[in-house]
Amino acid sequence: MKHQTIGHNETRWDAIAKVKGEANFTDDFAIRNCLYAKILRSTIAHGRVVDYDLTEARQVPGVIKIVLPEDLPQNQYATAGHPYAMIPAKRDIEDRLMLNREIHVYGEEIAAVVAKTELAAEIAVSKIKVTYKEYPVYLTPQAAMAPDARRIHPERDNIIANTNVGFGEIDNGLAEADVIVKEEFSTGVQQHAHMEKQVAVAYRGEDQRWICISSTQIPHICRRIIGQALGLPWSQIRVKKPFIGGGFGNKQDITIEPLVVALSMLCGGRPVKINLTREESLANTRTRHAIDYQVALGVKQDGHITAIDFDVLSNQGGYASHGHAIGGKGGSFINALYASDNLRYAAKTVYTNIAAAGAMRGYGIPQVMYALEAAIADAADKLGMDPIDFRLQNTRPEGYLNSLSQVQQFNFKINDCLKRGREAFDYDRKLADSQNYKTGDKRRGVGVASFSYGSGTYPFGLEVAGARLILIQDGSFKLMLGATEIGQGSDTTFSQMAADTLGVSYDKIIRDAITDTDIDPFDTGAYASRQTYITGFAVQKCAEKMKAKILQRAAELYDIRTEYLDIVDNNIVYAHNNQLVVSMADFAMASFYDMAHGRAIVAESSVNIHHNSYACGCTFAEVEVDVATGQITLLSCMNVHDSGKIINPLLASGQVEGGMAMGVAFGLSEGLRYSPEGKPLNNNLLDYKIPTTMDLPDFEMAFIESEDPLGPYGNKSLGENPLCSPAPAIRNAVKNATGVAINQIPLAPQKVFEALKQAGVIEE
Amino acid sequence: MKHQTIGHNETRWDAIAKVKGEANFTDDFAIRNCLYAKILRSTIAHGRVVDYDLTEARQVPGVIKIVLPEDLPQNQYATAGHPYAMIPAKRDIEDRLMLNREIHVYGEEIAAVVAKTELAAEIAVSKIKVTYKEYPVYLTPQAAMAPDARRIHPERDNIIANTNVGFGEIDNGLAEADVIVKEEFSTGVQQHAHMEKQVAVAYRGEDQRWICISSTQIPHICRRIIGQALGLPWSQIRVKKPFIGGGFGNKQDITIEPLVVALSMLCGGRPVKINLTREESLANTRTRHAIDYQVALGVKQDGHITAIDFDVLSNQGGYASHGHAIGGKGGSFINALYASDNLRYAAKTVYTNIAAAGAMRGYGIPQVMYALEAAIADAADKLGMDPIDFRLQNTRPEGYLNSLSQVQQFNFKINDCLKRGREAFDYDRKLADSQNYKTGDKRRGVGVASFSYGSGTYPFGLEVAGARLILIQDGSFKLMLGATEIGQGSDTTFSQMAADTLGVSYDKIIRDAITDTDIDPFDTGAYASRQTYITGFAVQKCAEKMKAKILQRAAELYDIRTEYLDIVDNNIVYAHNNQLVVSMADFAMASFYDMAHGRAIVAESSVNIHHNSYACGCTFAEVEVDVATGQITLLSCMNVHDSGKIINPLLASGQVEGGMAMGVAFGLSEGLRYSPEGKPLNNNLLDYKIPTTMDLPDFEMAFIESEDPLGPYGNKSLGENPLCSPAPAIRNAVKNATGVAINQIPLAPQKVFEALKQAGVIEE
Repeated sequence: MKHQTIGHNETRWDAIAKVKGEANFTDDFAIRNCLYAKILRSTIAHGRVVDYDLTEARQVPGVIKIVLPEDLPQNQYATAGHPYAMIPAKRDIEDRLMLNREIHVYGEEIAAVVAKTELAAEIAVSKIKVTYKEYPVYLTPQAAMAPDARRIHPERDNIIANTNVGFGEIDNGLAEADVIVKEEFSTGVQQHAHMEKQVAVAYRGEDQRWICISSTQIPHICRRIIGQALGLPWSQIRVKKPFIGGGFGNKQDITIEPLVVALSMLCGGRPVKINLTREESLANTRTRHAIDYQVALGVKQDGHITAIDFDVLSNQGGYASHGHAIGGKGGSFINALYASDNLRYAAKTVYTNIAAAGAMRGYGIPQVMYALEAAIADAADKLGMDPIDFRLQNTRPEGYLNSLSQVQQFNFKINDCLKRGREAFDYDRKLADSQNYKTGDKRRGVGVASFSYGSGTYPFGLEVAGARLILIQDGSFKLMLGATEIGQGSDTTFSQMAADTLGVSYDKIIRDAITDTDIDPFDTGAYASRQTYITGFAVQKCAEKMKAKILQRAAELYDIRTEYLDIVDNNIVYAHNNQLVVSMADFAMASFYDMAHGRAIVAESSVNIHHNSYACGCTFAEVEVDVATGQITLLSCMNVHDSGKIINPLLASGQVEGGMAMGVAFGLSEGLRYSPEGKPLNNNLLDYKIPTTMDLPDFEMAFIESEDPLGPYGNKSLGENPLCSPAPAIRNAVKNATGVAINQIPLAPQKVFEALKQAGVIEE
Repeated sequence: MKHQTIGHNETRWDAIAKVKGEANFTDDFAIRNCLYAKILRSTIAHGRVVDYDLTEARQVPGVIKIVLPEDLPQNQYATAGHPYAMIPAKRDIEDRLMLNREIHVYGEEIAAVVAKTELAAEIAVSKIKVTYKEYPVYLTPQAAMAPDARRIHPERDNIIANTNVGFGEIDNGLAEADVIVKEEFSTGVQQHAHMEKQVAVAYRGEDQRWICISSTQIPHICRRIIGQALGLPWSQIRVKKPFIGGGFGNKQDITIEPLVVALSMLCGGRPVKINLTREESLANTRTRHAIDYQVALGVKQDGHITAIDFDVLSNQGGYASHGHAIGGKGGSFINALYASDNLRYAAKTVYTNIAAAGAMRGYGIPQVMYALEAAIADAADKLGMDPIDFRLQNTRPEGYLNSLSQVQQFNFKINDCLKRGREAFDYDRKLADSQNYKTGDKRRGVGVASFSYGSGTYPFGLEVAGARLILIQDGSFKLMLGATEIGQGSDTTFSQMAADTLGVSYDKIIRDAITDTDIDPFDTGAYASRQTYITGFAVQKCAEKMKAKILQRAAELYDIRTEYLDIVDNNIVYAHNNQLVVSMADFAMASFYDMAHGRAIVAESSVNIHHNSYACGCTFAEVEVDVATGQITLLSCMNVHDSGKIINPLLASGQVEGGMAMGVAFGLSEGLRYSPEGKPLNNNLLDYKIPTTMDLPDFEMAFIESEDPLGPYGNKSLGENPLCSPAPAIRNAVKNATGVAINQIPLAPQKVFEALKQAGVIEE
């Protein structure tokens, strides 16, 4: 397939505005007569509000309204951003209200104040006195699963889901194995820490409907969830999404939007804004699930895998949010990566009293790949095999029909990734060099880890996307999408796709900063690395329709048969020799203004995609461990990706860099911590350790590019993929450096120091 | 044709917001960091700026930029809001720049100041010192046509067009006549005086394109004219039109938008607002053409018309604007109304140095009907015939193919209108009663006048319109249009049309306050009473497409053949007995979320309409003339309209009331006056006499409703029609009361007094 702009480093369409600081984010919208709301949050993690004393709060000047839970609609709803499911059992668990007297987490939303200024609202919130009744606090699934544990949501067991997938007989598989690796792994509570916090404004529109401007990854779903929470017909809500400063999955939960609309309603439709503080955004929204794994791996002496056994315990926190979709998801992705005679993946997701876990870039795969790839590395070690060779021997061949997901892995170039990485990373030399650093204070080692990742949610979720193209008089096109640009550059790649299919240059495609549920094509939004894949089909189909309509109109206007016409380089040409018929610009004018034939040309598509493509890749890491302090320095790190055809290499590399940084942080430094009472201890950017550029090496990367036959432009997922394998690669490198397997991430210095001490690496 | 909501008085969708003052008009948009521009206007009517002294103006605090003509692009452009014409000769005359050193009218835009506040801009403008070279000032076509007259636009003769249409031989026709009426008529310079003045804001958008929020009747054309004036590709401009407080044709000229965009460009893309003052809006925008008519009418004793001869001289003012389209237009509309053996309509349009005349509600027809219907009345008088009977005898029959416009007048119920009005107005009794008031100070009389009016501009103009419908999850629909709601209620009637065709109730259609050229279907806008007619077709076709798609999807989902399904009362039903299959709401949910079939349903249409329908009607007026003062009191007034099927009677009656008031004012009181130097003398609402409700009787009206086979819902034009015949009906009533034919309107007391004195009605 010949491409004109696909595969080129076209400049982001929003680059200039963003560099100049002229891009409008939600908080930038100047709304007349805007009121500000602040949320009163519980200072206990589990219990009940017995009483509110509002006396002092009411006296704060500027206070318009103090809102208690009983002032709002009492429709239980789910915050998770999934397409609506027609079958009730498939819907996300509806376990929350906008405000609550029942407290499930520290920081529960128990009241709200609307005031003329943010400060007045803040002061009034601080003056509300609350009397609590306290219940025991459960921070871990184990605690919440104890026989005498109180139900966190009375209507539901603390174990919200319990599944078991796989094939074969694990016991037989383990019995047949020559070597068994049995280990426990656990991951931390990573937080998205997107640059732009959650912020939303709501007001009554001129047509008496409710408008919510929000920094959301899922405007169309946001509309629905507001409707559900407020008990309104969905048409009565209009969601607008301006530029977004990152979401990473946290904005795939609808956390503040129903409340802000409800508050505007209580204030007669006046605009009300909620702008979470950094502390609220870090500790009171969603997190990556902390998951515990009990893994058993059975392998033959020749490297053949006989059994992969995973027992999974996922810490859901106080609300179900995306729930078991994350902890329960790993089986098919393990199976995508490695052949095994027997596989068991048993998972439980359990309510606790920490912040509700939700979607976060990787959606459970960084956790399961961390456990899997650590165990794989350890098995190779036990066999005395090279860990890359061991993987090459066991990876799934291309074309494998995944028996757990029913997805055929058409292109699945994991072995090419491993081989390319081995060479490009200079793995063997670095491994050999590290032999010189196995004693002394600074120990060096290298590690590898692989991953697999889907493109969208099929066959589990509905995959609908849409696009609309409008021909403009100068031969350019307006492209409308319901897909969500959240900073990742999707609008740029969609523009490349449209241009490529239309036969025009990239600069001829005009995009919009705002996604608006009233007018933009229906699309479920930015998650599951679905957009370039699923929405890509919508763009392609729409552009194909547009091109066909253009050629049909050209045939009318110029009396040339449609099949003899084509569009190349912004010109309508004779297909057989590319000779010019008319420039797109001249054609466009005639298409509008010809007295006989003139009228607008528009095209629209809505697609429902019934397949998926598995992407894959791997990380190579070289670390230096300061055994005296437990400090790990990442010396070099490389990702290799099979994401099919790369639409825009520069944007793709941005995705990979950011993803690797987040994956490294997942492995090394980031984790929310809680007091025994469930109070967040590091809900700020000083104590919550996001790596800075000073903490990271220059990342290296490579793409194994081939055109996936199922991807719209040969492409597969990339957005979440880069952070799936850095953590295990680092863990494996640390083990290679020190000989010690540390199976709890993040590998913070204190944890490493203690593990090394316990292992005798450090002598007291 | 059975209608569900068409013909019903559905409530305007924007009623609540407007009544509560919550509707946002252009000036309500809160734009951050907005700058304000004021225009320096010439204090002479004809000449040239020799020099500007900016010294003092530059020192005004807050001034950002002082802009002279040479600072701006020098692309000549036309302000008239017509669709672009592919043939250069058919385009509006491109005779202006955004700012000019050459002065064609008093108040010419000769410089602009951008400042941080409106006041600072105003002060700085007042401090610019201008040295002029003055030329002779021509206020009338006669003066500008004098042999030694200077060309107002050097590149063009002062007579900008000179046309002659008709059939037969006028001289023969007049020779054959038993009675000849020969008269001269002239009309005044009426101004639109819309409640909301011209206002626009422009800024550079996040995609580096230019956004202009404007109170315009023609957003898509506005985009084009900005592009032409600035020399930008049209895609680089985005026009948004919020609610509009009236336009009446004045906002069918693009007067301030290119300048405001150009000023924003000069200020680095910062928002700049221009908000004309009332004085500017009245005197420095557009007016209704003042037209002089020399009319000769030949009739046989039996009432047969042998000749209609019109010599027309239209006062264009300083710029061509809509130019000859107005003065040149009357022939086919005279021919639409009356059969005549011979017809000649010879018209000239001439530049002068008064304000440029442009489109104004009625677009030349109130003027020509005033002259025609006065002459017709006088002919009847001369023959001693009843003026209604005389008309009934000569009106065109239904089905007449208009030989001048090539439009077939399918439904043309002028006789029904006249007969209905005679009865409903109680014409004969009032006429008889008036005999008791033919002496003394208070004289009474009755008068009648007819008119014909087109629906859109076919075959002269391109008639393209579009619509888009989006099914929403709760079974309602979003309707997108490029047609322009300017207060007339068009969005409400379009919603009724869509609902009717879809089989759902009116409340299921959701409209938008803003028309946005980037996303709304292409439509040339609000003018020529075209929208319910032309855009009506687009809405109908779009709704038909949507309905077909719904039934097709329903067939997929429920395994029932499409042809057995229908939509009635918000339900999908079996067509043969209306039995429920599924509610639209439940269907809509399945249409989005069914795993196999789910995807969005949208429909879009763009139509190019190749026909026209002639509406018609008449006015009955009863006046009392105070011969001592010349003051005319309108005692009662009734309009009867054949506008085909009435979509929303309440909104239609609003159109008729407003139009009648404007038509009465055209005849009685409104007129801009100029000093001999061309300075406007009454550019304010105190001196420019708009009638208040105290000045007007309770208007009566009736509709002769029938379904026009060419109208989308049997409907024809109505918006401009009501003001076409009040002025001649009043003039005829005054003649009936006093015996004096006063042939210059407005019939201001002084003019009436002098005419009566001259005729000897008033004795000194």
